[in-house]
Amino acid sequence: MSMLENVRGPRDLKALPEGQLDNLAAEIRHFLVQAVARTGGHLGPNLGVVELTIALHRVFDSPVDRILWDTGHQSYVHKILTGRQDFSKLRGKGGLSGYPSRAESDHDVIENSHASTVLGWADGLAKANQVLGRADQVVAVIGDGALTGGMAWEALNNIAAAKDRPVIIVVNDNERSYAPTIGGLANHLATLRTTDGYEHFLAWGKQLLQHTPVIGKPLYESLHGAKKGFKDAFAPQGMFEDLGLKYVGPIDGHDIPAVESALRRAKRFHGPVLVHCLTQKGRGYAFAEQDEADRFHAVAAMDPLTCAPLTPSSGPKWTAVFGDEMLRIGAERPDVVAITAAMLQPVGLQKFADAFPGRIYDVGIAEQHAAVSAAGLATGGLHPVVAVYATFLNRAFDQVVMDVALHKCGVTFVLDRAGVTGDDGASHNGMWDMSILQVVPGLRIAAPRDADQLRAQLREALDVDDAPTVIRFPKETLGEPLPAIDRIGGLDVLHRGDRPEVLLVSVGALAATCLAAAALLRERGIGATVVDPRWVKPVDPALAPLAAQHRIVAVVEDNSRTGGVGSAVAQALRDAEVDIPVRDFGIPQQFLAHAKRGEVLADIGLTPAEIAGRISATLTRLRPDDEALPPT
Amino acid sequence: MSMLENVRGPRDLKALPEGQLDNLAAEIRHFLVQAVARTGGHLGPNLGVVELTIALHRVFDSPVDRILWDTGHQSYVHKILTGRQDFSKLRGKGGLSGYPSRAESDHDVIENSHASTVLGWADGLAKANQVLGRADQVVAVIGDGALTGGMAWEALNNIAAAKDRPVIIVVNDNERSYAPTIGGLANHLATLRTTDGYEHFLAWGKQLLQHTPVIGKPLYESLHGAKKGFKDAFAPQGMFEDLGLKYVGPIDGHDIPAVESALRRAKRFHGPVLVHCLTQKGRGYAFAEQDEADRFHAVAAMDPLTCAPLTPSSGPKWTAVFGDEMLRIGAERPDVVAITAAMLQPVGLQKFADAFPGRIYDVGIAEQHAAVSAAGLATGGLHPVVAVYATFLNRAFDQVVMDVALHKCGVTFVLDRAGVTGDDGASHNGMWDMSILQVVPGLRIAAPRDADQLRAQLREALDVDDAPTVIRFPKETLGEPLPAIDRIGGLDVLHRGDRPEVLLVSVGALAATCLAAAALLRERGIGATVVDPRWVKPVDPALAPLAAQHRIVAVVEDNSRTGGVGSAVAQALRDAEVDIPVRDFGIPQQFLAHAKRGEVLADIGLTPAEIAGRISATLTRLRPDDEALPPT
Repeated sequence: MSMLENVRGPRDLKALPEGQLDNLAAEIRHFLVQAVARTGGHLGPNLGVVELTIALHRVFDSPVDRILWDTGHQSYVHKILTGRQDFSKLRGKGGLSGYPSRAESDHDVIENSHASTVLGWADGLAKANQVLGRADQVVAVIGDGALTGGMAWEALNNIAAAKDRPVIIVVNDNERSYAPTIGGLANHLATLRTTDGYEHFLAWGKQLLQHTPVIGKPLYESLHGAKKGFKDAFAPQGMFEDLGLKYVGPIDGHDIPAVESALRRAKRFHGPVLVHCLTQKGRGYAFAEQDEADRFHAVAAMDPLTCAPLTPSSGPKWTAVFGDEMLRIGAERPDVVAITAAMLQPVGLQKFADAFPGRIYDVGIAEQHAAVSAAGLATGGLHPVVAVYATFLNRAFDQVVMDVALHKCGVTFVLDRAGVTGDDGASHNGMWDMSILQVVPGLRIAAPRDADQLRAQLREALDVDDAPTVIRFPKETLGEPLPAIDRIGGLDVLHRGDRPEVLLVSVGALAATCLAAAALLRERGIGATVVDPRWVKPVDPALAPLAAQHRIVAVVEDNSRTGGVGSAVAQALRDAEVDIPVRDFGIPQQFLAHAKRGEVLADIGLTPAEIAGRISATLTRLRPDDEALPPT
Repeated sequence: MSMLENVRGPRDLKALPEGQLDNLAAEIRHFLVQAVARTGGHLGPNLGVVELTIALHRVFDSPVDRILWDTGHQSYVHKILTGRQDFSKLRGKGGLSGYPSRAESDHDVIENSHASTVLGWADGLAKANQVLGRADQVVAVIGDGALTGGMAWEALNNIAAAKDRPVIIVVNDNERSYAPTIGGLANHLATLRTTDGYEHFLAWGKQLLQHTPVIGKPLYESLHGAKKGFKDAFAPQGMFEDLGLKYVGPIDGHDIPAVESALRRAKRFHGPVLVHCLTQKGRGYAFAEQDEADRFHAVAAMDPLTCAPLTPSSGPKWTAVFGDEMLRIGAERPDVVAITAAMLQPVGLQKFADAFPGRIYDVGIAEQHAAVSAAGLATGGLHPVVAVYATFLNRAFDQVVMDVALHKCGVTFVLDRAGVTGDDGASHNGMWDMSILQVVPGLRIAAPRDADQLRAQLREALDVDDAPTVIRFPKETLGEPLPAIDRIGGLDVLHRGDRPEVLLVSVGALAATCLAAAALLRERGIGATVVDPRWVKPVDPALAPLAAQHRIVAVVEDNSRTGGVGSAVAQALRDAEVDIPVRDFGIPQQFLAHAKRGEVLADIGLTPAEIAGRISATLTRLRPDDEALPPT
């Protein structure tokens, strides 16, 4: 590992002779496999960009030049080359983030790990350079998969318009996001990859025409005088050139001198230019190269020699319960179709896709299109299930409101990874959905507490054909089944204490936390009722009269405290003129640093002890002195 | 008007001889000018699509075939031709909507008047047709301006991928959204518009090559065998063909037989096809044709002969106050730049643009890019002001959270048309912003109550360089200045009644409503304090102690009741253990039908009488019997 240890920053990298770079790349690959196998993390994407990252840091002067990584899960090599080689606590509390992090390094700019944003950032940074008269370079690295996102298009349209504002776009084309990239763009990129033949043809044709006065020369000159010129008329790099972007490529992204040469050419161009690099996701690690599903996009901790997981699977997963139920539903209901935004496997739709290939749609990294095309599918007579990670639904908020809800479309959104996810950091926590979706007229939200509820509520959602429905569940492993002991209106009663003073409203998978809090309250002599509303929007009409029988209501949710279920319950009580105190427990209004889910929950006080403590303190304050509780 | 009166539906239109269609078009134009001049409404876009709409309804069989209108403000001709010729109450309560409306007609499908959605709808409807084995046509009409929106790209990428799933995309290319269309795409469309020369060249070149065995024929055949074929290699329709869309055009969109012919060709293609129609916004009405700003995109009621407004302007507008202050700020602060999403004039940035052409960016209909590129500009050292209509910020929610707020960027969003806008119907009301933005960590929201406050708060916002700020104000004309009589913490005290029992928290322009409600309460013997928090997020720390001095708190806002300022205030009181009743007055959770703003506010109870009545009823309930108020 001697060479890598001596690379403390881009300057050391630039000093290395070209002949040693392939060895360095091999060292980095070995480091990546060992490090990521130890902690888990993104492996395939990083193995694919080793040479590209080396070349970038040799050609440009980060951090003065800005090297921007789209999505950011492919920034491990960049971290290694910019002084961050301690991967021992990768994605763990206090360790390196799995994405770029400005707190870690001046070489990092974008922390947002939602895809397709980098070109917009590049456009803004380039505009700032222009206004302030700076000549620094802006280099944006984006995968072919991320180009399917609308934001990338909006940015390309703006970048291409200013011929005098340099932006270097590096397309890291591995033909994949998680899964193979889809759509017309992917087909076009496939054409570009085979341009070599055209280049040879071009050289031949150009010479032929120029030396054939009668027919060839006027033809050549007509073409040459035309807006697009000779080469552009023949070679199919068309799309990007059509927009006004200079196109360089395709380049073998594992050939360091070739990439460096292309980048230097792009740098000299002083305008918007796109460098098309072909790379192989998972390169150099046989297990990854051979994995057709996602080329080891992200892995759990494992033995690097065998890929066996270090910790055995800890039980059934929410995603699998959803996927299996979708398979059953698909067989029963020919009108049910499913949509994924480039994450067929991660959201659990692979079995459905295999069984019903005509009823599954991978729309690319395009959550807006997932929602809008679902509105079209519903209007056309089908019932679409749009399965996305909770945090990514933020991308489709306008479409959920204006296309799905306004048009009363029966579309079911299934939000996996809802609540605190932890180790992927701020942008992966699914902590927004139950707040922003509260405002959508007609929309209903289910938060199942266990596998049975997930199956049942999914079917209930699919029976709603005139409004959007949402099912949200966390990333964690499923806990024990939590049967109801009673039902009041739409509320499942999970626990009923003696002389209950506290109504605990439990949201989804936090039912176990609420039951534990009720047990702690009982130890303090405080009786509690625990209910699970199942459908948390709209607030069940049975809740206000039930609340009126208690002295305080507490709502516990794995979502932003702001505007979430707690706020909705409190407002429903106000509207019903039930003016008893409400306390809400959820995620405070802050971006959460990466750590294990349990660590995060403890940090933010979403634990039975904190909940019981706060409730009993408020009760003590409310209680007249003569009723004060004995100390516990 | 005899011909138009006899066209009761598409069937009548199909029966007309081709020779009479131009006369019909002239009648429709006359009708449009007279009708829209009477009520106000969208004029330029509709004048531009008269012939196109006639051709569409002659070639396709609506409503079995789906004719879909992007944005929908160009659907007036479609309404006229599908049995809706009573424009007397256009955009008024009980009258025709200014957009497609499923309640009005089976010929209408999409009511969402946010741009760039139609291709997503078309993709969904076409997929449903395929699953259900239907052969009905799906025809999507989209403007060139709307193609700058990312959703359009996401949809194109999906539509182009399925060669066996017919979708007909009609690009209504008038080189404009409100303003001229921007970006690389616009440049590309400009190239396509001049394809005529290429067509002629092609015919000549093809013949020449085919009849020249030695050189020409092999060259021709090489090209012919290449993926893109001969024509595609020469003619610059490249971009769409590159994605895999069949391209037909450009067509003169005012030549009915030519448009019909192109549409029939597209119909026979049985795959994804794009028909490129060139039209002239405002065509046939000289005032509109000569208006360089926006070709009479939308007009107020006016005299059709002179264009003089029927009702004189009723005073200064919020937009103008903002625009004038931006001009002053621009001169003082070279670091301030401004961004518009294709609406330079409507959002009041024209003067800034004229004075500082190097510091204004029109990003196209691309709110996501507006927000992300603003994050880049801020990170690059500038302070961007993003000015959009409030309802359109929904498009950029994820970017506000993950790019601007997570990165602590000093970006100021100025939301015009916030609150109830009324006559543009459900999708134009700016009723979401103060709810969804509540969850964004660090973000601050100002709701100025008058012109002085708008000017002051804009400057306060521009002094915040480490977090996003938002200024929101309504569409209506500015009212009188409302000076504060005191300041408590950050709260402006606007009124202090005798022995105040009620704390009225007024949000923005509803200050006058709150003062009127306080006056009504006084008539009932109830004292009220009226405060304007100015910055409504975060909740000012002075609010809870002040609230504790009252018996009830009421929050009045021109925003969704759900999760809005009322909810935030109520939660802040709960967190401070101030458990007094709160009542929230705002927009109920429903989509609001079009009507005048005042009519809508009355319908939803956002009036002084309703507010005072509800508060006094609650107080009566809370008051012990012996303190009951005398009847009023």
